[in-house]
Amino acid sequence: MNTSAFADFRSYPLISALAAVQPLADRLQVQWADGRFSPFHHQWLRDNCPCAECVYSVTREQVLEIVDVPEDLVPNTSRIDAQGFLCVEWQGGHHSRFDPGWLRAHAYDDLSRAERLQARPKSQLWATDLSVPVFDYQAVMEDSQALLSWLLALRDIGLTQVRGVPTEPGSLALIAQRISFIRESNFGVLFNVQSKANADSNAYTAFNLPLHSDLPTRELQPGLQFLHCLVNDAVGGESIFVDGFAIADALRHEDPEAFRNLCEIPVEFRNKDRHSDYRCLAPIIDLDALGRVSEVRMANFLRGPFDAPAAQMPALYQAYRRFIAMTRETRFRVMRRLNPGEMWCFDNRRTLHARNAFDPASGARHFQGCYIDRDELLSRILVLQR
Amino acid sequence: MNTSAFADFRSYPLISALAAVQPLADRLQVQWADGRFSPFHHQWLRDNCPCAECVYSVTREQVLEIVDVPEDLVPNTSRIDAQGFLCVEWQGGHHSRFDPGWLRAHAYDDLSRAERLQARPKSQLWATDLSVPVFDYQAVMEDSQALLSWLLALRDIGLTQVRGVPTEPGSLALIAQRISFIRESNFGVLFNVQSKANADSNAYTAFNLPLHSDLPTRELQPGLQFLHCLVNDAVGGESIFVDGFAIADALRHEDPEAFRNLCEIPVEFRNKDRHSDYRCLAPIIDLDALGRVSEVRMANFLRGPFDAPAAQMPALYQAYRRFIAMTRETRFRVMRRLNPGEMWCFDNRRTLHARNAFDPASGARHFQGCYIDRDELLSRILVLQR
Repeated sequence: MNTSAFADFRSYPLISALAAVQPLADRLQVQWADGRFSPFHHQWLRDNCPCAECVYSVTREQVLEIVDVPEDLVPNTSRIDAQGFLCVEWQGGHHSRFDPGWLRAHAYDDLSRAERLQARPKSQLWATDLSVPVFDYQAVMEDSQALLSWLLALRDIGLTQVRGVPTEPGSLALIAQRISFIRESNFGVLFNVQSKANADSNAYTAFNLPLHSDLPTRELQPGLQFLHCLVNDAVGGESIFVDGFAIADALRHEDPEAFRNLCEIPVEFRNKDRHSDYRCLAPIIDLDALGRVSEVRMANFLRGPFDAPAAQMPALYQAYRRFIAMTRETRFRVMRRLNPGEMWCFDNRRTLHARNAFDPASGARHFQGCYIDRDELLSRILVLQR
Repeated sequence: MNTSAFADFRSYPLISALAAVQPLADRLQVQWADGRFSPFHHQWLRDNCPCAECVYSVTREQVLEIVDVPEDLVPNTSRIDAQGFLCVEWQGGHHSRFDPGWLRAHAYDDLSRAERLQARPKSQLWATDLSVPVFDYQAVMEDSQALLSWLLALRDIGLTQVRGVPTEPGSLALIAQRISFIRESNFGVLFNVQSKANADSNAYTAFNLPLHSDLPTRELQPGLQFLHCLVNDAVGGESIFVDGFAIADALRHEDPEAFRNLCEIPVEFRNKDRHSDYRCLAPIIDLDALGRVSEVRMANFLRGPFDAPAAQMPALYQAYRRFIAMTRETRFRVMRRLNPGEMWCFDNRRTLHARNAFDPASGARHFQGCYIDRDELLSRILVLQR
């Protein structure tokens, strides 16, 4: 029934019928049956015309470019037709016809925009008392609803465990590919976390690793990190997690100046070996357009010397020390030992992870890991929600 | 000779010797032989101690975390030793010893910071009269200096051509891997640009494509795009390029309000098919921390309906129309026909590309493409420059 080519793969239920349309100088003012008013500028309506001439129906991509119609284009007529669609006949003769469900979903009056903002997913902050969401490997592999539940927990909580994963090396890839292709790095498609003689990262030693995100040395930190336990006979090596968003949030309240400095002063992260030399200059805390914490970037062992104006240096150290001190506070820390067949999957741009030192002489320890970007997580969620 | 573990894979030549060191309340004030003064705060010096206790020599990564020493730590003594190194003995007994070349390279007095800023690579803007830098496949494959020249042109000019590439499908991967691994996307590791019956993008039709960047639908647009011509017997299909940085720069001078709106108002780009649903909300022009244009994100056929406050909508359309109109201006456009064995490689976050419509009935046309991220380009350049 929905003839709008723009509706591709999504449905736009009728929230409220179109009640009236009033022509104004540069826009149509629409009134809905529930009383809401929404302006739609002429340029916006013409730009979003869903007809087969303006949108190629196979790809559902626009072929019209708005610059191909006059800047002062106005309708000859506008009306609501018998199916409740908004019909516009433009000067020059082109016709556009808009589904009222689609139109309401894209209305940009203040109320409609505020509703959409309110409906966006929100992060659920957590602390030491988190009950880590646990998912079953077979269910996630076979059932798309179980898969969706897992992915929503990753998006909103940012720390999950999967149990019952086969302990054959490489099994990790199968479950990762339930989401998407894997993001390769200089450490490979899958990386092996083992103590190595010629380690090119402290991750590949038996040292304790302080709380960190992986690959802060890249412009885009990996969105999801997978860590799959194949063997864990060594003494020590417990996994520790903190919610970087919760710490940033606490810092914002407890020391606003430190918070601001970590948002504003860029820090260089670097990782070098014989074959690569990565550097990234970015603040430790990143905010989205609405001022909400959207990312934490932190790995003390990959950080370069601070390079800031001398007058800022004491405040930068004060803020940095404070942040690290908070990652060590019991109130934020979740510590668990991972057993063979168990896998961590977490939001690498939010949930900082650490490892206690282990004793390689006491037994074998072998984890495998990989990354998937946030784009892929969000895309898979949207497809599963169709 | 250089005992600093931090110097790993880089050399820090002695620019100027240390002449004197003066202890102040929270820092050492160093004077160099050329007269420059550089402050080094106690926290900064202790944090950057290169000794084997603070930095693990195998990975060259720090094991000290600054929060493990007191915030008010001060030196007992500081002096310049016989080798010209800065030596600090800290309260509590730890010793740090700093290479004067390394120290000068990381000094953060205003002059030293300004010098480093000045030394950063700068984009060379171009217009229709660009002489496209051309490189030879064999040379790039065999000679690391030829490879470096190509990569510097990619970094600074953002549009290059390589000739003599074998026309066997997949050859593209070999030259891309001279830089690094390839960035996969939902279109594959390598993608085939051919007219297809069930196209999931207008790129896979015979339509003209307006000037655009690839994958503006992802948080991180691919840094480099490769387009390799295997067969080109069809009439039409010429490649067109514009320097998005040059256009943004011209817009900034010719219409500052439009420029500002394109920097500030986020726009949604989206790409959907049966298996994926990508969306990214970001401004069309992105500026770096210094206010310089660092990225252009644009593909009209992947753009969603504008969602901005009604009061901003007319100005957003004005700015967007102006930008598209500029991409069509002759002064900015470089148009070339690619022949078999030739390959474009360009900065996908800067250089917008387009294609004229072609006539699939007139002959075969087959291009292959792939992506590599900017991190990988910059890393390879740094390794080649060692």
